[in-house]
Amino acid sequence: MSTADVTGTAPGWLSAAELGDVRDRVPMVYVEAVPVRLDHLGRVVRVGLLLRPLADGTLSRAVVSGRVLHGETVREALWRHLTKDLGPQSDPQLPPSPSPFTVAEYFPDPRRTGFHDPRQHAVALVYLVPVTGTCEPAKDALDFSWMTPEEVTSPLVVAEMSSGHDRLVRIALAHAQRLP
Amino acid sequence: MSTADVTGTAPGWLSAAELGDVRDRVPMVYVEAVPVRLDHLGRVVRVGLLLRPLADGTLSRAVVSGRVLHGETVREALWRHLTKDLGPQSDPQLPPSPSPFTVAEYFPDPRRTGFHDPRQHAVALVYLVPVTGTCEPAKDALDFSWMTPEEVTSPLVVAEMSSGHDRLVRIALAHAQRLP
Amino acid sequence: MSTADVTGTAPGWLSAAELGDVRDRVPMVYVEAVPVRLDHLGRVVRVGLLLRPLADGTLSRAVVSGRVLHGETVREALWRHLTKDLGPQSDPQLPPSPSPFTVAEYFPDPRRTGFHDPRQHAVALVYLVPVTGTCEPAKDALDFSWMTPEEVTSPLVVAEMSSGHDRLVRIALAHAQRLP
Amino acid sequence: MSTADVTGTAPGWLSAAELGDVRDRVPMVYVEAVPVRLDHLGRVVRVGLLLRPLADGTLSRAVVSGRVLHGETVREALWRHLTKDLGPQSDPQLPPSPSPFTVAEYFPDPRRTGFHDPRQHAVALVYLVPVTGTCEPAKDALDFSWMTPEEVTSPLVVAEMSSGHDRLVRIALAHAQRLP
Repeated sequence: MSTADVTGTAPGWLSAAELGDVRDRVPMVYVEAVPVRLDHLGRVVRVGLLLRPLADGTLSRAVVSGRVLHGETVREALWRHLTKDLGPQSDPQLPPSPSPFTVAEYFPDPRRTGFHDPRQHAVALVYLVPVTGTCEPAKDALDFSWMTPEEVTSPLVVAEMSSGHDRLVRIALAHAQRLP
Repeated sequence: MSTADVTGTAPGWLSAAELGDVRDRVPMVYVEAVPVRLDHLGRVVRVGLLLRPLADGTLSRAVVSGRVLHGETVREALWRHLTKDLGPQSDPQLPPSPSPFTVAEYFPDPRRTGFHDPRQHAVALVYLVPVTGTCEPAKDALDFSWMTPEEVTSPLVVAEMSSGHDRLVRIALAHAQRLP
Repeated sequence: MSTADVTGTAPGWLSAAELGDVRDRVPMVYVEAVPVRLDHLGRVVRVGLLLRPLADGTLSRAVVSGRVLHGETVREALWRHLTKDLGPQSDPQLPPSPSPFTVAEYFPDPRRTGFHDPRQHAVALVYLVPVTGTCEPAKDALDFSWMTPEEVTSPLVVAEMSSGHDRLVRIALAHAQRLP
Repeated sequence: MSTADVTGTAPGWLSAAELGDVRDRVPMVYVEAVPVRLDHLGRVVRVGLLLRPLADGTLSRAVVSGRVLHGETVREALWRHLTKDLGPQSDPQLPPSPSPFTVAEYFPDPRRTGFHDPRQHAVALVYLVPVTGTCEPAKDALDFSWMTPEEVTSPLVVAEMSSGHDRLVRIALAHAQRLP
């Protein structure tokens, strides 16, 4: 998860100190999106991954992920994070059902669920989101790449993911029946 | 369900006599699609219904529905029926997961499941399909109309549906959290 | 939603003042369960509703609902709230998939999503949970009743629900293909 | 898939010759069930596999699978195959929603979808079914074994599966968030 949600001045945004305080008390609500390119029959042909710096300074490949703000709907949060991370021309196709294909629970202790966030307990609703437009890494991301199902589950790319995002991608591909 | 699948010469197509024979012996595999227009946040704003003649000569509003042919995948059947019924410019967005939001089981006895087909026992995989292009009624349909969730669940429109398609539409709207 | 989560001394619990403070800053994570009795074929034959006092002193019929505590998994929270609300002999059968059948977003403004909580912005993961044991209203509930799909969607019972729980029940029944 | 559905005298059953004839003309409707043991929190702790002879005489580990007969509902077919294959004391817990977690399309050509049946084109609705009773291999199965998620995805056990059932099991485990 990125550090981009920490500060801000709009309603719903918290200072870093306030957010740190809240994070020790209640789980945070997150949305996550696995961006995909589909062929005309709806089959996943590419999965999109961001390359972004983690809180500890290392680089990691990751799916789109971010906090739901106070007063914001899940759909608004998905749209905000997708268009920020993939650029204003990315044209994400949000799904008609609010039901996520899986729920990822992040804990500071990586042994808890396999999903790991050193900063907080977060509950993420995870969606598979077809993206039809032009993507360019925005916000704090250094790169955005489309990969085939084979590439994205290869040992090389898996080694570049952290926080359990490699598992998220495999669950997403299984859901779409495209796990190699 | 329409009568359009009965005959043909391509592989997988059966003569009317052959199909009638098979229909008495095994359940038929069907795909059905509830066409929807979404706003940029993925919320259903319109549901599309065809107006088509039933086998008994009456007219009925219905979702897209058709048989899966021998040798054809579910996705290929969905694409074929959607582009035939809504026209070649309709641009249906098939979903990335093969899991239908519900399964409708049609029996000659309407009391069995509430889904009714006087001709056969059919098992239909039902999908919610966003449609972004221009739709024009094709094949054997007389009309195609986009309606709001309120209109499509109104007593007037419900009375124009048969076979249990009004229930399918309500299940689809509930799945999308848009049931009025 | 009940007032039962407000205070406590175990880790993860907050004082009423602390919780009030946090509630103004971030959305709360909730789990909700629609308890159901199934026949041997898995069909929903009864839906269970609690009768409980709301924060404003009125009584309301409601599904099982409660906060996910800091450090607690979604499954642990579901188990805790179900066995507290329905009693230790209720034997709820938690589902194998973490994917909720819907997500209910509660806002202080009832016009926002139709799900209403005057106290807070809450994001609830909602599950259909078969219950096979003996239920007795526990915690702060006054009654627990099993109702048929017809009863639970009747105008009388709908009028006794609030916060949008009548919609949740209808979405649950549609998901199970038992909406009358 | 087993050969057990071929013959019979009850309504809906076909002679081997009749079934062979129908199989060349339309896709067959199948149900499949991945039997699982859950802990009290609903997490999959074991997956059940049958050991059964294939049509070619070799042995194979497989999930529960069988045809939906003419006039039979999907739930009735699931119950019939589960209690036949796992025994009358197995007590399968059929899910409340008719929506399968995936759809497996079997073709004589194994390159088509990765799901392979040399005899026919079959469309299988696949369910994750918690089983709480005592299982004993019945019908034509030689053995039934409960395995951990690690065991069932190990190279040794995967090599004993055919028809793509190893993929089905992995998709099922991913759906339950238990893919190792």
